[in-house]
Amino acid sequence: MEMAEPQFKEYAIEEFTVRGEPYYRPVGDELELFTGAYNQRIPVLLKGPTGCGKTRFVEYMAWKLGRSLTVVREHDGSASSPNGSGNGDVAVPLVTIACHEDLTASDLVGRYLLDADGTRWIDGPMTRAVKAGAILYLDEVVEARKDTTVLIHPLTDHRRILPVEKRGSIIEADDRFLLCISYNPHYQSAMKDLKQSTRQRFVAIEFDYPPPEIEAEIIQRESGCSAAQAESLAKLAVKVRNLRDEGLEEGASTRLLIYVGRLMTEGISARRACQAALVWNLTDEPELQRSLEELVTAVFE
Amino acid sequence: MEMAEPQFKEYAIEEFTVRGEPYYRPVGDELELFTGAYNQRIPVLLKGPTGCGKTRFVEYMAWKLGRSLTVVREHDGSASSPNGSGNGDVAVPLVTIACHEDLTASDLVGRYLLDADGTRWIDGPMTRAVKAGAILYLDEVVEARKDTTVLIHPLTDHRRILPVEKRGSIIEADDRFLLCISYNPHYQSAMKDLKQSTRQRFVAIEFDYPPPEIEAEIIQRESGCSAAQAESLAKLAVKVRNLRDEGLEEGASTRLLIYVGRLMTEGISARRACQAALVWNLTDEPELQRSLEELVTAVFE
Amino acid sequence: MEMAEPQFKEYAIEEFTVRGEPYYRPVGDELELFTGAYNQRIPVLLKGPTGCGKTRFVEYMAWKLGRSLTVVREHDGSASSPNGSGNGDVAVPLVTIACHEDLTASDLVGRYLLDADGTRWIDGPMTRAVKAGAILYLDEVVEARKDTTVLIHPLTDHRRILPVEKRGSIIEADDRFLLCISYNPHYQSAMKDLKQSTRQRFVAIEFDYPPPEIEAEIIQRESGCSAAQAESLAKLAVKVRNLRDEGLEEGASTRLLIYVGRLMTEGISARRACQAALVWNLTDEPELQRSLEELVTAVFE
Amino acid sequence: MEMAEPQFKEYAIEEFTVRGEPYYRPVGDELELFTGAYNQRIPVLLKGPTGCGKTRFVEYMAWKLGRSLTVVREHDGSASSPNGSGNGDVAVPLVTIACHEDLTASDLVGRYLLDADGTRWIDGPMTRAVKAGAILYLDEVVEARKDTTVLIHPLTDHRRILPVEKRGSIIEADDRFLLCISYNPHYQSAMKDLKQSTRQRFVAIEFDYPPPEIEAEIIQRESGCSAAQAESLAKLAVKVRNLRDEGLEEGASTRLLIYVGRLMTEGISARRACQAALVWNLTDEPELQRSLEELVTAVFE
Amino acid sequence: MEMAEPQFKEYAIEEFTVRGEPYYRPVGDELELFTGAYNQRIPVLLKGPTGCGKTRFVEYMAWKLGRSLTVVREHDGSASSPNGSGNGDVAVPLVTIACHEDLTASDLVGRYLLDADGTRWIDGPMTRAVKAGAILYLDEVVEARKDTTVLIHPLTDHRRILPVEKRGSIIEADDRFLLCISYNPHYQSAMKDLKQSTRQRFVAIEFDYPPPEIEAEIIQRESGCSAAQAESLAKLAVKVRNLRDEGLEEGASTRLLIYVGRLMTEGISARRACQAALVWNLTDEPELQRSLEELVTAVFE
Amino acid sequence: MEMAEPQFKEYAIEEFTVRGEPYYRPVGDELELFTGAYNQRIPVLLKGPTGCGKTRFVEYMAWKLGRSLTVVREHDGSASSPNGSGNGDVAVPLVTIACHEDLTASDLVGRYLLDADGTRWIDGPMTRAVKAGAILYLDEVVEARKDTTVLIHPLTDHRRILPVEKRGSIIEADDRFLLCISYNPHYQSAMKDLKQSTRQRFVAIEFDYPPPEIEAEIIQRESGCSAAQAESLAKLAVKVRNLRDEGLEEGASTRLLIYVGRLMTEGISARRACQAALVWNLTDEPELQRSLEELVTAVFE
Repeated sequence: MEMAEPQFKEYAIEEFTVRGEPYYRPVGDELELFTGAYNQRIPVLLKGPTGCGKTRFVEYMAWKLGRSLTVVREHDGSASSPNGSGNGDVAVPLVTIACHEDLTASDLVGRYLLDADGTRWIDGPMTRAVKAGAILYLDEVVEARKDTTVLIHPLTDHRRILPVEKRGSIIEADDRFLLCISYNPHYQSAMKDLKQSTRQRFVAIEFDYPPPEIEAEIIQRESGCSAAQAESLAKLAVKVRNLRDEGLEEGASTRLLIYVGRLMTEGISARRACQAALVWNLTDEPELQRSLEELVTAVFE
Repeated sequence: MEMAEPQFKEYAIEEFTVRGEPYYRPVGDELELFTGAYNQRIPVLLKGPTGCGKTRFVEYMAWKLGRSLTVVREHDGSASSPNGSGNGDVAVPLVTIACHEDLTASDLVGRYLLDADGTRWIDGPMTRAVKAGAILYLDEVVEARKDTTVLIHPLTDHRRILPVEKRGSIIEADDRFLLCISYNPHYQSAMKDLKQSTRQRFVAIEFDYPPPEIEAEIIQRESGCSAAQAESLAKLAVKVRNLRDEGLEEGASTRLLIYVGRLMTEGISARRACQAALVWNLTDEPELQRSLEELVTAVFE
Repeated sequence: MEMAEPQFKEYAIEEFTVRGEPYYRPVGDELELFTGAYNQRIPVLLKGPTGCGKTRFVEYMAWKLGRSLTVVREHDGSASSPNGSGNGDVAVPLVTIACHEDLTASDLVGRYLLDADGTRWIDGPMTRAVKAGAILYLDEVVEARKDTTVLIHPLTDHRRILPVEKRGSIIEADDRFLLCISYNPHYQSAMKDLKQSTRQRFVAIEFDYPPPEIEAEIIQRESGCSAAQAESLAKLAVKVRNLRDEGLEEGASTRLLIYVGRLMTEGISARRACQAALVWNLTDEPELQRSLEELVTAVFE
Repeated sequence: MEMAEPQFKEYAIEEFTVRGEPYYRPVGDELELFTGAYNQRIPVLLKGPTGCGKTRFVEYMAWKLGRSLTVVREHDGSASSPNGSGNGDVAVPLVTIACHEDLTASDLVGRYLLDADGTRWIDGPMTRAVKAGAILYLDEVVEARKDTTVLIHPLTDHRRILPVEKRGSIIEADDRFLLCISYNPHYQSAMKDLKQSTRQRFVAIEFDYPPPEIEAEIIQRESGCSAAQAESLAKLAVKVRNLRDEGLEEGASTRLLIYVGRLMTEGISARRACQAALVWNLTDEPELQRSLEELVTAVFE
Repeated sequence: MEMAEPQFKEYAIEEFTVRGEPYYRPVGDELELFTGAYNQRIPVLLKGPTGCGKTRFVEYMAWKLGRSLTVVREHDGSASSPNGSGNGDVAVPLVTIACHEDLTASDLVGRYLLDADGTRWIDGPMTRAVKAGAILYLDEVVEARKDTTVLIHPLTDHRRILPVEKRGSIIEADDRFLLCISYNPHYQSAMKDLKQSTRQRFVAIEFDYPPPEIEAEIIQRESGCSAAQAESLAKLAVKVRNLRDEGLEEGASTRLLIYVGRLMTEGISARRACQAALVWNLTDEPELQRSLEELVTAVFE
Repeated sequence: MEMAEPQFKEYAIEEFTVRGEPYYRPVGDELELFTGAYNQRIPVLLKGPTGCGKTRFVEYMAWKLGRSLTVVREHDGSASSPNGSGNGDVAVPLVTIACHEDLTASDLVGRYLLDADGTRWIDGPMTRAVKAGAILYLDEVVEARKDTTVLIHPLTDHRRILPVEKRGSIIEADDRFLLCISYNPHYQSAMKDLKQSTRQRFVAIEFDYPPPEIEAEIIQRESGCSAAQAESLAKLAVKVRNLRDEGLEEGASTRLLIYVGRLMTEGISARRACQAALVWNLTDEPELQRSLEELVTAVFE
């Protein structure tokens, strides 16, 4: 049996600019803080729990800063927007890298590949971001290996350079380049903390789950469930997050609440949807599962 | 002495769609839950003990969803089923990967191979699954290395992309693609737990051993033993699983009960078949072995 | 000084079928149990102490099953025996792999080698066994790495397939293929136990040292010593194995008793032969050595 | 959508001499000590906390020593300055390497690369520095692997050589070469201390944060904030650093104070700027964050 | 300055047969035991402390067994001795490998090397020994990695084969091949003990330091010192070895006593020679050094 | 900006013979002991604290032994000195290797490199030393990996060979070859001690800091300071080394005292020079630093 090659889309990383305004609901003055830091090209550290919207926030800022940069450049009489397109709806390129302990410096900076004509150099995503003037977003940076952490030092002080040691060369970052990292303070053990010599190179912005009325707005918009259902879920979220004091490892993320909403739009009962997306997901402990089920019953009775 | 090359069959992974309806006996509403999650393309986490049928369930869903997708597409006026064959008996391709701590990101995503004309890129099974719109089933995901776990993050949020860092490219997943992972909560130590930032990207479905009357039905069908023998074995299974409170590491899986049935169809006595497939298998402790043998005697006397 | 290339014999692994009936002395119904499991193609786990005859048993079964398979096929009108030879004295091919923590999945499944014309794929012994319909015997399987253990999962359930991830292909096992593993329960620490999800894929057969009258028969036949000497050695073995309660790590294997017999046929005194092959071998502790020497004196006085 | 290749600058490491006089505000006689050590070519160890200006100091010395060397050489009648340019504003080349535990000796010394014509040797940054007569600055040297630490031994005694073991050759350092390392005594555990056999090859210069009046001068100059704001920040810094006795891991670096000043020039309030650049950055502990906020309030009320 | 290539000799391992009768002074019936084991081709384990003569003993046996083999073969009418030379003074080839934890199976068995015409297989020393019918001597076998230990299993039972997994082939050992391993019981920790499943494949011969009169004979012959000096040193050795009960890690080997003798023939005083070759060598503890010096004074007064 | 390739010198390791008589001030009969051991070709172990002159001693012996060898050979009527030059001022080649835990056996012995014509073998420094008849000096040998330590066994007994396992060959050492290792007893933990089976292959020479009058002579000669200053520094050294009982990790090496002298010749005050080269260098503990400063004040008042 033969099978036709399925359709799929593949992009170069530089092309992965955010297309269209991403949905992001601000909670405080985080937009102003990030913009101020970006204007000064001060690297930014985003702190907060799982699924509270850090990744979405960076996407939104990449889109928003792209718009303003375009305007600024047009005032300067420059003929084209930074991405080469004429309309105003462009973004600063965004390169996102999920950090982990097996990611090597070579994976980030680049490597030599053997070719028919000998070895050829291939830029890694960090090098591409530095050259392209992207926002480079290192997600969960404390999971990275030491050699990765150290790479960002000369990019985050007055030098703004990336040494490419394997080539014996140094790259000066594009004017628009900014490094941004994220970090979940609830996770860190003494073993895997961010070193002060790294940490003190950033301005920090702390995130938390949104307040209930804003979270309900987000759930309804993202899941397509009813306003009443969304409000109930936001109410439930507050109660669930309080269980952290009783042994729950981490509170329910907004993402999980949206999952419940989406399962309900598929005709699955609220109780069953909460069981699959919240109760069974958040813990394996029968005791805690019972406490969670009681909260679900209390809200959806 | 020369030997003729023996006959054997080899397939490309994409061709490994489930052929014919697999035998799966539902216990609750797990079919509805999985279908709802699939329609919303919410990734699924299957939890449950060894040998309770998680792998068979995924195969069944791949077959079942393939049927409905074909029907839907035909309603859309599309001429062919997703797998290029005209009949309705097709499945969503299923790519199963047993996770372990030596499986690298390159094993999953792909690698460059040196060729007569230089290096050539070879897609790994994860990349093939993402392109082919398969259900990608990562079995025992907590055994995987960190770099493997992190690969699934951008595949499980609104982005639905697979960054192929070694090529500097990004692949958007096919519309039909879904990630599915399994996990046995009895095993996990603190060291090898699923991180919340990974876990909260899934809807969870909890499995357990089937109730005795359904398990007897399964044993009889799969082993070819008599109904009476199957009933006795299902009864024995309940008793054996209760021994977990007295030190047995894990209960007898349905698979082991089927083994007993199959040995009996070979003419081996019930007592001897239980000894080989249950007693000697489940534990090395003489004390526990004696307890198990007493249960066998009690049921087959 | 030049030296002529010495004579030696080299075989392909597929050719390593057991030639001629191996000497194996059954103790219970282990032949029937293994035959039943093989007919049902249920994988087999052999448990037992060092040197109790597990390896010899597998060789014998490979020879014996080859004979019956040949007969069966001839009844089917097939012209040739499985190994392409016309006589009945053939065996199922046997591929034995001694497991250890540095054996990689690539060592077992195969790898790409760089050639004058680029890379070429070389099948590993596991792939060869799967294709050739061999009995694949993984000796001391708990010593294997995780990636090795996981390879056997799809070979040991209803799928009977070997995924060759580096080639993106799947191999269906030949009809005659069976996986067989061994395991010494006296060794295992908590760290290196067989996972239940692996273990519950096998039927288990427990072995122990043979009873004295059978062991004497084996010693005499294998060492060429006298019947009286063999009886004394079998008697000594029982006494030595009882020392395990007093700190001896493991009892004397039948192999060591055969060594004593063979040294005696070389004219070395019983006392001295026992010292070299038993006392000095079994322990470095002076206290235990003295106890062993007393047992030797008691038996050979 | 295509994107034009963005503009960026790339240099060879040898070219990375410090251009123009870097801003460095001396606190004591550190310039004289370093100059004395350099004249004697005694390697230098810089000790001090994060962000107290060690890197900037080395850059300044490289610039300053380059000036005097040029003058000296001209007195000798040599026609050109060390860097081949005619004007006096040159520097000793400075090669900075951030040390970490995944940096190998090959990364530093060089390696063979496979080429169309076979293997070709590529000098690493340490080899380039030794040949070019640079100041080689190994930042946070205790983070380096043992093989890296050992490389510096023959460079730091009377031999002044770099053995390039992979090539079987030895390089004598250029006359102008000096090794300089840095080290933060607050970090070191027993595990990662500098061995005495390495340490006793250096003259040590201890750094600390500058006194308030000098630090205010630096903050104002580097951030563009007002003199009053800079004075307040310097005052705040003293108070914050005293919190180290109450659990704060490390005091605020001058760099963080400059960040606050720069955010204020972007129109962000002093309180909010301090929160982002100091409070949230320095600790994740709510208790300590409250203490820090009180200090901020006290200073900026 | 050019330097002429110095003279040196290089051999293929197969050529490294022991030339001329090595000096070995038997202490008990170890020659008979080894000869008996060799005739039966039973693998041999040599146990004993550092420097008691195990390596010299194996060299002697290789020489001695070569002589008798030659004679036997000549009786058979074979025209040439095993090494292709006509005279009787030949030896069984001896391949010695010092084991350590970084020695891989590939180092022993062989590997593929990339050549102008693609990959070429190079036999490792173990493969050469197996083919050449050598005595393969694995020195300090417990230091070896697991993959190395496991390699010797099929070489040490009735199979006498070496599986070369990377080539998918099996080599039958030459008739003359024997495996011999050594082991120092004083060193072993629980972590690094020889597994029983390996150990029970050998006949063991225990060695200890020779008695004083024999040791004096050896010292005099090997160092060229006077008979009186040799006697004093042998007397000293007994006293020094008794210090093991008072904290000395291991007694003085015969080799160290020979060193003392050789230094004395260079005109160095007995006291000073003992200090360098015994006192300073055996321990770094000042207390133990004083005890040793007192023993030296007592003997050489 | 282009930069002319700076001048630097590169040698082959064989050429790195010590040129001209190195400055070495004997303290006892260490010259006679080393000469005696060299004449007997007994390997030498140098023991002593950091910076007490072990490396300089070996260089001196290489120079001195080269002179006598040349004379001896001329008496034999040989036409040229060992290094091919006619004058008497030659040295035995000296190959120094600083050991560390990432140095592999391949780094020392050699490796295959891929070339245009396939693989080519490159001798490592140990192989070069063995062929060239050099003194091979392994500095801080306990830092080496096991595979490195084991390499030296056959070089240090009657065999005097280097097995090159990757080539399947054996190299007999040149007549002039001697192995010399160093070791600092103050460092060693139980984990990283020299094994007795390695240690008992050497004659040991213990070093300590020189007595004050000799040390003053060395300081004055090496630093160019005045006799009075040198005497004060030698006096200070004794006091500082006594602080080891009060927590100082290791005493001041002669090298550090020379550094103080050299800083003083640059016009830096005695107090400041001692602070940089002694106080700040020897410890990070404020308490110990104060004790050290008091000693400095007491001596230089």
